[in-house]
Amino acid sequence: MAFSEAVVLLIGDELLEGRVSDLNLAAVAGALADRGIGVTRALILPDSRGAIVEAVRGAIAPGRVIVTTGGLGPTDDDLTVPAVAEAFGLELCVSDEAEAHIRSWYSSAGRAGPPPSALRQALIPSGARAVANPAGVAPGIVLPAGSCTTVCLPGVPREVQALLQPCLDDAGVRGQAAPGAAVLRTWGMPENALFDMLSGSSVCAPAQIAFLARPGLVDVKLRGPGAAPAADRIAGLLGEAVYARDWTSLEAVVGRQLEAGNATLSVAESCTGGLLGARITSVPGSSGWFAGGVIAYSNYLKRKLLQVPGEVIVTSGAVSEAVALAMAAGVRRLSGSDFALSVTGVAGPGGGTEDKPVGTVWIALEGPGSSEAREWRFGGTRQAVREASSACAIGMLSGALRRGRP
Amino acid sequence: MAFSEAVVLLIGDELLEGRVSDLNLAAVAGALADRGIGVTRALILPDSRGAIVEAVRGAIAPGRVIVTTGGLGPTDDDLTVPAVAEAFGLELCVSDEAEAHIRSWYSSAGRAGPPPSALRQALIPSGARAVANPAGVAPGIVLPAGSCTTVCLPGVPREVQALLQPCLDDAGVRGQAAPGAAVLRTWGMPENALFDMLSGSSVCAPAQIAFLARPGLVDVKLRGPGAAPAADRIAGLLGEAVYARDWTSLEAVVGRQLEAGNATLSVAESCTGGLLGARITSVPGSSGWFAGGVIAYSNYLKRKLLQVPGEVIVTSGAVSEAVALAMAAGVRRLSGSDFALSVTGVAGPGGGTEDKPVGTVWIALEGPGSSEAREWRFGGTRQAVREASSACAIGMLSGALRRGRP
Repeated sequence: MAFSEAVVLLIGDELLEGRVSDLNLAAVAGALADRGIGVTRALILPDSRGAIVEAVRGAIAPGRVIVTTGGLGPTDDDLTVPAVAEAFGLELCVSDEAEAHIRSWYSSAGRAGPPPSALRQALIPSGARAVANPAGVAPGIVLPAGSCTTVCLPGVPREVQALLQPCLDDAGVRGQAAPGAAVLRTWGMPENALFDMLSGSSVCAPAQIAFLARPGLVDVKLRGPGAAPAADRIAGLLGEAVYARDWTSLEAVVGRQLEAGNATLSVAESCTGGLLGARITSVPGSSGWFAGGVIAYSNYLKRKLLQVPGEVIVTSGAVSEAVALAMAAGVRRLSGSDFALSVTGVAGPGGGTEDKPVGTVWIALEGPGSSEAREWRFGGTRQAVREASSACAIGMLSGALRRGRP
Repeated sequence: MAFSEAVVLLIGDELLEGRVSDLNLAAVAGALADRGIGVTRALILPDSRGAIVEAVRGAIAPGRVIVTTGGLGPTDDDLTVPAVAEAFGLELCVSDEAEAHIRSWYSSAGRAGPPPSALRQALIPSGARAVANPAGVAPGIVLPAGSCTTVCLPGVPREVQALLQPCLDDAGVRGQAAPGAAVLRTWGMPENALFDMLSGSSVCAPAQIAFLARPGLVDVKLRGPGAAPAADRIAGLLGEAVYARDWTSLEAVVGRQLEAGNATLSVAESCTGGLLGARITSVPGSSGWFAGGVIAYSNYLKRKLLQVPGEVIVTSGAVSEAVALAMAAGVRRLSGSDFALSVTGVAGPGGGTEDKPVGTVWIALEGPGSSEAREWRFGGTRQAVREASSACAIGMLSGALRRGRP
């Protein structure tokens, strides 16, 4: 059936206790958006039967999909199933499919049969269907009730990923297409600079503009009438700071650019400590274009592995244009790659000086025909400086490849 | 004043559109927990004035702290302040403190005065106080109203970090101490193994037990009467799989262990591509114990930099005990560190074989007197395999240091 909107309930004490950030809402909302359904509201709830019953009751409405995550396990604090049943006024019944799934999950793990506590997970609300979980014991649950359907997923993100599409398929979830909108993903532009340049300017009108910033990266979102031509005009203004006009990641974009040029990349990292390599290799298939590199956290490794001359480190300092260029040249020579990126900076919280405060980072790019280096001043925490550094390093390569150099 | 509980409202279309995961709730809930206040519920809301007004009205109650994040900026989709004012039936007034903060933020950035849109951020509900934002333009807002206090924070995590404590101080937020509970943080134990071993067993009784899993790491939480002695008994059972009895991270624990032994570490990474180094260097001051290492993503770099013999790669395969041991020995020799960790595995989604399916990972540790290697089979996505690999590598070192072995 066609649904009009969704409400998501994220269940688990750990989410409210300040130690874990929810990762499931983004996955659930993304899958629903692909089916043309927007999430109007999400609630984060404790492992409390009363709170879950109240929230489910508050969410019941015609044409609505209710998705829950968490609280499907076998322990005493797993209360989602009885609470959903209570909210809809339903009994719990043993599901033969769920019981078969639980038994087969235990037998395929090569262990003795399931303990009685595990079999509690075969109890589902009457009228609901169990969906086998490829990644865990607890089955997903799909409960159609009138023109409202509830989908219960586990809390472990890996299991949510595995069960999400099968459960939405089983529930027959589809909606209208999403309204027209445009996005420009940018690197290396501070949010306030973008805001001053674009907000309220005629280049946007009559579309509405909004900004979404992470360290080193800002997404410019346009919506409403005129969003598409406004996006074209802004893309012309921003040039190579725009790395994508859809939601593709910067890492995936640069991977495609390297692949298209049949080129390879290596990295030499100081303050990012491996984060640049970790981001590049987050893309499946990155072994096709990424050779690897050196985490030259100590000056000793900068000299020994990358052949950065000791006197350059002494005279210019480890955070300098000369050292960044020598690091990139060194790792390119070592690895035989076409391109090399290097990062050296002061991530903080210690180590800043008046000349080179925390957030000062030099990034260099060395290619077959030329090299470039650029100094950055990033704000924020140690983690933000490291993330911005790795994002802008990848951005510099993406921009250079777009210019067709070197 | 003493507050009894908190409700958090996380505001922003991007959170409901499936592209961004909220990171602010954990920070807010952690800061409130430190002050003895639990979060009973959190809502994720769109940039819609009506939705925010309704949610604030629903949250108003005596003794409650309401914290909002997001929607404080100068653009048309920043609606939190007028919505909070409407929910409490208050007018908006210009705050002199807020205006002074905005003007000084612009002048310190060396730019011309603030545009009119920025000055809109000086409008706050009557009776509210503005708190200067060290990390951005938008001030925080503290609104006491009867025995309920509302704190409005920006949406950018860096700004939330900067404004959270000053705003909670300004609001005088404090509560009762949190109830007794215990935690055991473990590495390298599958959640289902821990569950089967501990759940329902007499070792826990009468405390309640719950599990919280991330790739490679499981937290065992105990609460209720008998939590502390149950935690002692379980710690005895689990041995070196327990890396902390409080919420310290594994990276910080191993950093302290290395520091205490005046020892240094290097890494050689294949499938993790830099993630192991990135995790180790997430700890401030890690340059005191971390030398760096090699991202040997290609076999060429495994041979050339780490001196892994080419015939070993051919006969044993790149994902093997022999290659892992040779990688660790190679990077230890190169860097001169006391300890070296290496990781080589099949992160997927491609590259798996019948013998070495996706998730097969060899991790080796080489120390001054001996070396060890261990094969792992991790489940889940590429990202989960990479995270579990880097966590278990750090865990292996932490366990070895605890045993007092090289």
